[in-house]
Amino acid sequence: MPSSAHKDMANAIRALAMDAVQQAKSGHPGMPMGMADVATVLFSKFLKFDPKQPHWPDRDRFVLSAGHGSMLLYSLLHLTGYEDMTLEELKNFRQMGAKTAGHPEYGYAGGIETTTGPLGQGIGNAVGMALAERMLAARFGDDVVDHYTYAIAGDGCLMEGISHEAISMAGHWKLGKLIVLFDDNGITIDGKTDIAVSDDQLARFKASGWDVQAIDGHDPDAIEAAIAKAKTTNTPSLIACKTTIGYGAPTKAGTSGSHGAPLGEDEIKGTREALGWSHEPFVIPEEVLGAWREAGLRSQSEAAAWADRLDGKNKDLQEAFWRGQSGELAEGWQEALNAFKKQISEDQPKLATRVSSQKTLDVLTAAIPEMAGGSADLTGSNNTKAGGMAPVSAEDFSGSYIYYGVREHGMAAAMNGIALHGGLIPYGATFLVFTDYCRPSIRLSALMGQRVVYVMTHDSIGLGEDGPTHQPVEHLSALRVMPNTYVFRPCDTVETAEAWAASLENDKAPSILALTRQGLPTVRTAHTEENLVSKGGYVLREAEGDRKVTLMATGSEVEIALAARESLQAEGIGAAVVSMPCMELFDEQDADYKKSVLGKGVRVAVEAALKQSWDKYLGFDGGFVGMTGFGESAPIDDLYKHFGITAEAVVAAAKERL
Amino acid sequence: MPSSAHKDMANAIRALAMDAVQQAKSGHPGMPMGMADVATVLFSKFLKFDPKQPHWPDRDRFVLSAGHGSMLLYSLLHLTGYEDMTLEELKNFRQMGAKTAGHPEYGYAGGIETTTGPLGQGIGNAVGMALAERMLAARFGDDVVDHYTYAIAGDGCLMEGISHEAISMAGHWKLGKLIVLFDDNGITIDGKTDIAVSDDQLARFKASGWDVQAIDGHDPDAIEAAIAKAKTTNTPSLIACKTTIGYGAPTKAGTSGSHGAPLGEDEIKGTREALGWSHEPFVIPEEVLGAWREAGLRSQSEAAAWADRLDGKNKDLQEAFWRGQSGELAEGWQEALNAFKKQISEDQPKLATRVSSQKTLDVLTAAIPEMAGGSADLTGSNNTKAGGMAPVSAEDFSGSYIYYGVREHGMAAAMNGIALHGGLIPYGATFLVFTDYCRPSIRLSALMGQRVVYVMTHDSIGLGEDGPTHQPVEHLSALRVMPNTYVFRPCDTVETAEAWAASLENDKAPSILALTRQGLPTVRTAHTEENLVSKGGYVLREAEGDRKVTLMATGSEVEIALAARESLQAEGIGAAVVSMPCMELFDEQDADYKKSVLGKGVRVAVEAALKQSWDKYLGFDGGFVGMTGFGESAPIDDLYKHFGITAEAVVAAAKERL
Repeated sequence: MPSSAHKDMANAIRALAMDAVQQAKSGHPGMPMGMADVATVLFSKFLKFDPKQPHWPDRDRFVLSAGHGSMLLYSLLHLTGYEDMTLEELKNFRQMGAKTAGHPEYGYAGGIETTTGPLGQGIGNAVGMALAERMLAARFGDDVVDHYTYAIAGDGCLMEGISHEAISMAGHWKLGKLIVLFDDNGITIDGKTDIAVSDDQLARFKASGWDVQAIDGHDPDAIEAAIAKAKTTNTPSLIACKTTIGYGAPTKAGTSGSHGAPLGEDEIKGTREALGWSHEPFVIPEEVLGAWREAGLRSQSEAAAWADRLDGKNKDLQEAFWRGQSGELAEGWQEALNAFKKQISEDQPKLATRVSSQKTLDVLTAAIPEMAGGSADLTGSNNTKAGGMAPVSAEDFSGSYIYYGVREHGMAAAMNGIALHGGLIPYGATFLVFTDYCRPSIRLSALMGQRVVYVMTHDSIGLGEDGPTHQPVEHLSALRVMPNTYVFRPCDTVETAEAWAASLENDKAPSILALTRQGLPTVRTAHTEENLVSKGGYVLREAEGDRKVTLMATGSEVEIALAARESLQAEGIGAAVVSMPCMELFDEQDADYKKSVLGKGVRVAVEAALKQSWDKYLGFDGGFVGMTGFGESAPIDDLYKHFGITAEAVVAAAKERL
Repeated sequence: MPSSAHKDMANAIRALAMDAVQQAKSGHPGMPMGMADVATVLFSKFLKFDPKQPHWPDRDRFVLSAGHGSMLLYSLLHLTGYEDMTLEELKNFRQMGAKTAGHPEYGYAGGIETTTGPLGQGIGNAVGMALAERMLAARFGDDVVDHYTYAIAGDGCLMEGISHEAISMAGHWKLGKLIVLFDDNGITIDGKTDIAVSDDQLARFKASGWDVQAIDGHDPDAIEAAIAKAKTTNTPSLIACKTTIGYGAPTKAGTSGSHGAPLGEDEIKGTREALGWSHEPFVIPEEVLGAWREAGLRSQSEAAAWADRLDGKNKDLQEAFWRGQSGELAEGWQEALNAFKKQISEDQPKLATRVSSQKTLDVLTAAIPEMAGGSADLTGSNNTKAGGMAPVSAEDFSGSYIYYGVREHGMAAAMNGIALHGGLIPYGATFLVFTDYCRPSIRLSALMGQRVVYVMTHDSIGLGEDGPTHQPVEHLSALRVMPNTYVFRPCDTVETAEAWAASLENDKAPSILALTRQGLPTVRTAHTEENLVSKGGYVLREAEGDRKVTLMATGSEVEIALAARESLQAEGIGAAVVSMPCMELFDEQDADYKKSVLGKGVRVAVEAALKQSWDKYLGFDGGFVGMTGFGESAPIDDLYKHFGITAEAVVAAAKERL
């Protein structure tokens, strides 16, 4: 490619970015203009992709971790020929209904591999994608799965703590096919980076086992050489690209003035002159567009050859591969789970639901090979490593269990990447209280509609002595209010199995399983193949005689509700117990069903947590037995007594309302 | 000190730790046993502290970032003579009401400088303490403020992302009096650290500008030499102490088996033999206790000399110093704020509440010298840098504004450290949606009852084009459910000023100010010196005629409620508007007041957020106009229309309930 072609191709990105931001009257022109040279080299010489098949499984993944530079991505998608990324979409940047949202939104258009904007998340996603690539390659062969994952990250991404977790994981797993292009422009919103940060990024990545290079991010030859070298390493690679933010803008280049606002008409005019780009806004000359479209065709033969190779494989492997890609669950899993439920209903063990979860996972991971589990250094406490799961390591990616280390945030972001990559169903664990540590990534699971299962154990004061720092009280409500997130709190082994089933069957949302540390009796003693948890809430024990009282509970407090029911019934007060393992699913049921479950009489809810998410079922008159503030450090029985979460309290709350 | 004395002193810690955990039947013996040598050298030779004056302002700060090793701290406090840390408390480890909670809880006993347990937080706190020390030294002189901050951190702390943010900040500010002792024992819960992490920690810290050393953590001479050297550096120091977890335990030492569970009677017996410690549980021989108590007296003369030096200073300086320590607000601030409120009520500007906040800060920071502000790289967007605030830097700590960089989590943890240190009142900012990035630290502000003000701007879809990744929808409810946390969402400049006042007046809890990006009219046009926001909710406009409808709103939606009221009144329907800037404060009012505000008729709430936290005021019959899921990227007016958050919708919701 002659250097003039490169220059024009890069300038096409710059022009589209500054013009779209100007037209939208908001956005971030500086980053696309600064990284246009790097992106041009990457997309025209290296990236393996086919705009006609955005979901081709073996494409290279490209993650714009610095998501505010969305116009870089949209420009590239348009220029290389993604059909849904029309010029019209670029002109509608940041408008209602456009595919060109302010930050890249997964699912809005082909080629948007993940939603970014919250800084650092993209690096975590990229690590997950690169890990998934290695895990699938170990299963299906390097001739079926063999792609790179590229990410563009800015100073902000690298300042975020999540970047440390992601970088550290990638280095540990020696993800050689992960290449991070660092937009080293020395500028953040507050000004020059040196007002806030003095890290030697190269040394930092090196300390985590990465290969590092530093180049002039405006020199196409240097960029090409650096990426070529990065592709050959056995470790992940960082390429620090020294760039000028807002490259070409006569007065704003190199300043935070070009970061997050339109350049303005005058500055844009000056930029056109400085770049030698005389074309009107949104006009790309034919030969420049042609060069870009040609770049978009580069990998078509490779895609065809890949399809042939896969077709040549044995049928079982092909089937397994495509099942993984489709996200469908392997046949037979439901039968296996039902057999387990039946056995449990008969055996009626007393188990902590975290242990119930492990037993369920023994069944599910054997039946569904796509399941890829892990924990943030609490494997034995979260009970996430099912029988037969081998750990993944840099030396051997054929296993399905991931030791994520003490990195809740990195784990969650990586799980998003694994889910987005396709081919695996990730689940990962920590204590429920530490959902706070990964909440930004949980939110992105929800926003992107990704099937990521969060196994969150030690779900209340029931964990006992570890005390208030470890006892979730507000977390159930705080998670229930997150859109498109299903929070399950099962009360025994049967419900735990059903919660897992409901989580896996929903491939359009994340699920959170809140599980106990302490043992719970089996209350679902009558086997049914129906998944009662999938209704969200149901009558676990109907009242004898007229129902005067409805006691609602989840998880460990169902046992308390059942004891309270006994007392009420003994006094001749008809009381039903409703198990409410998943409010989100219950709220989706029809009005008649909900009415029949909740009843007309007195309602009392009991949950060892704060009340907020129950108010909708309780109204002004319902009673609530639970927590009102932080917990304490003490043995479990003392805690329940101290905080008054007892059957007696439930009975009293019901009776004072009769 | 003869080495036998050191050995016995260290073994006293080991014995107390293993015996207390055994007695409690839960806890973490491994870490205290591993770090006993390091802690003994630190507390007996270096740490400047006086058990008789736990709050002596110029004491060295000691932070146990690896909070699960709480018995290390409790043992040290008992041995050195903190009066409230009796032997009885050690025997009651992890029991209800004991000062010896599972993890160290701030406020439970003298010498517990911060609550730790959630990993990595302690390092962030320590950075804040060390920063506060430098800032106060710049104000009051190095002869008044001159202490070190020590932290013990484990592998878990260093894997957490927050550690990166904290380390990076400390390096940038060249906090030479911060010394982190890394318990480099190579073990985490899941096993050997090498199953999950391969970082070169020394190289990593070096990359962030730290001085680094690696020593044998069981060699008292090496420990002493390393700390002595670390005290001389102009940069923060890391000392990686190679230790054996569970040191002395015959079969469990060096394994994760000693990390988080009692050793068991047999193992304890073997440990006693191996350590040459023949004393009964909880018995410390007189000469060992004597040596420890002597260590506890070491700094008394220094404390006296310090008090003399301060007494010799001019009265203004003394007064300012002690006012800062007391946490009292400087006289005159209320008068200044009232004058501002009066002026605003007259001028009636249309301002975004983030701008209102800046104008309030212009007044407050001039009146209250202790205020120390900052932002996570959004200074211009959060409007947190008031007129006259100079930035803090490694070269000059005399300013009061902190560029925290893109480090929300590190910022929040540092603010906790600043607040705990005393002498400054920290506030810090990011976008409301990114409270998720610092939620674990906000929770600790709340749990510790620290006055930290979180300035959270861009508080709804009202931010417009940046789209769903940046638009908070669940955050108001998710924060309102956090105990001891006050969430303010003011509707104009007057309310913003009042929200700031209420935040500063509450020195026992954090506050969160949710502020708009978009302009809002002044609705509080009649000046009053009374702080109406401090009631949490109040009738902003009473109904004309009988009140049939009560419209409740916060922040930017108060304007919508007022417009809806006009429409209803025009139809002859008496409607009041209640402004509800702080639900937590409203809920604290007496029942009569609350009833009078909420009214008896139809209630409709409007807030550009999810409904959950409103249910308690709405019951089954109330209406809600707000969000039901994630936002979209579009201009603000399109968004409000698209999501139906309009005066018309409020009117309709009211009328269908009449």
